[in-house]
Amino acid sequence: MFQRIRIIGRGRVGSALAARLEAGGHTLRETDPDLVVLCVPDAAIPDVAKAQPLGPWICHVSGATPLAACTPHTRRFSLHPLQTFRRHGGPEQFDGSWGAIGAETPEALAGAAWLGRELGLRTFEIAEGQRALYHLGATMASNYLVTLYRLAGLALAKAGAPAEALVPLMRRTIDNDFDLTGPIARGDWATVDRHLETLRARLPEAEAVYVSLAEATVRSLQSEEIE
Amino acid sequence: MFQRIRIIGRGRVGSALAARLEAGGHTLRETDPDLVVLCVPDAAIPDVAKAQPLGPWICHVSGATPLAACTPHTRRFSLHPLQTFRRHGGPEQFDGSWGAIGAETPEALAGAAWLGRELGLRTFEIAEGQRALYHLGATMASNYLVTLYRLAGLALAKAGAPAEALVPLMRRTIDNDFDLTGPIARGDWATVDRHLETLRARLPEAEAVYVSLAEATVRSLQSEEIE
Repeated sequence: MFQRIRIIGRGRVGSALAARLEAGGHTLRETDPDLVVLCVPDAAIPDVAKAQPLGPWICHVSGATPLAACTPHTRRFSLHPLQTFRRHGGPEQFDGSWGAIGAETPEALAGAAWLGRELGLRTFEIAEGQRALYHLGATMASNYLVTLYRLAGLALAKAGAPAEALVPLMRRTIDNDFDLTGPIARGDWATVDRHLETLRARLPEAEAVYVSLAEATVRSLQSEEIE
Repeated sequence: MFQRIRIIGRGRVGSALAARLEAGGHTLRETDPDLVVLCVPDAAIPDVAKAQPLGPWICHVSGATPLAACTPHTRRFSLHPLQTFRRHGGPEQFDGSWGAIGAETPEALAGAAWLGRELGLRTFEIAEGQRALYHLGATMASNYLVTLYRLAGLALAKAGAPAEALVPLMRRTIDNDFDLTGPIARGDWATVDRHLETLRARLPEAEAVYVSLAEATVRSLQSEEIE
């Protein structure tokens, strides 16, 4: 579909994206492109887009940024890889990942789907009005998983246990399709109360997180019962 | 070390534990044991322990429960597999997992370490006074990972995106050693503000979780800077 692809930006996403397209037989180019892929920070998209000559298709890879950021281009779409990327990581980072497509016309959708296939992504469409909600969900799932591990690991470290011992537990929790076990699932409030006492005495910086997640866990069990 | 093992309880942990010991060549028995392993609910441990004749070693597999729950037995230890278990799952569930040992004497420690090896666990000791903190860390890491996925998945579902698209993202976040990316790591407060507005309008049940984890994420970055 696209023959002459230019990628602007070689950060975490841009370098992996370039490597995957080159591995797929595409020769990337700086001049006369038919597709320009902007792999620049979200805030830079409007200025970089404006600086591109009209004509070629233009694509950004941001989850949160509206397509209007590519103005004045109207041949435009977005493809957000729903993944966290390492610095200097390779194209294999796309494998098994999903990507969110933003497109306003059938032609744009076809272009985005083509790029998704070239990258090896499973794709779905995201409506412009739903980007913020989609992006906050993605951010919570990835970033707050890090914070959850740090807080739980801090509890283990303070208890004299290795924080890394949590890693096989967290992997298995995902492998088990997020099956909920533990005190709240059992209705064991005595243990929850002991946790709260212990938090206040030993790890007060985790109390707000513990309480808000406990309440959300209870609500998720209640909504399961209603279903 | 132990030749005649009795396991009481065949729930999620007990059945996997029995399967692993049998696979290792142990014949489990109901009478005249030299080790009794209690795989019963935490609250049942004191009564089940009291009902056992004195003489054999006694072990429980609870993370939160003190060794004193095995009173009047003094030949006692505990071994808590730091793992979440499926119903009717097999002994492979121990593979790669860690286990926390509770022991008051060198002899008890040797017994617990032996059992840990037989199960295929990597073990560490947990002091009696640290159990509550250790257990709350383990609970947070597993149970609240489930709740985090449910909330983030709800955001995606409400945005018209497949919640399961988060799974490769969460796995990779672990594979990448919990490297923090995203708006807070970048200091992109405009995006965080947009998330908060969106939460209030579209997913108010997740606001407290988002805010408490955002604050904890900021604190964890600050303590990284200090280090």
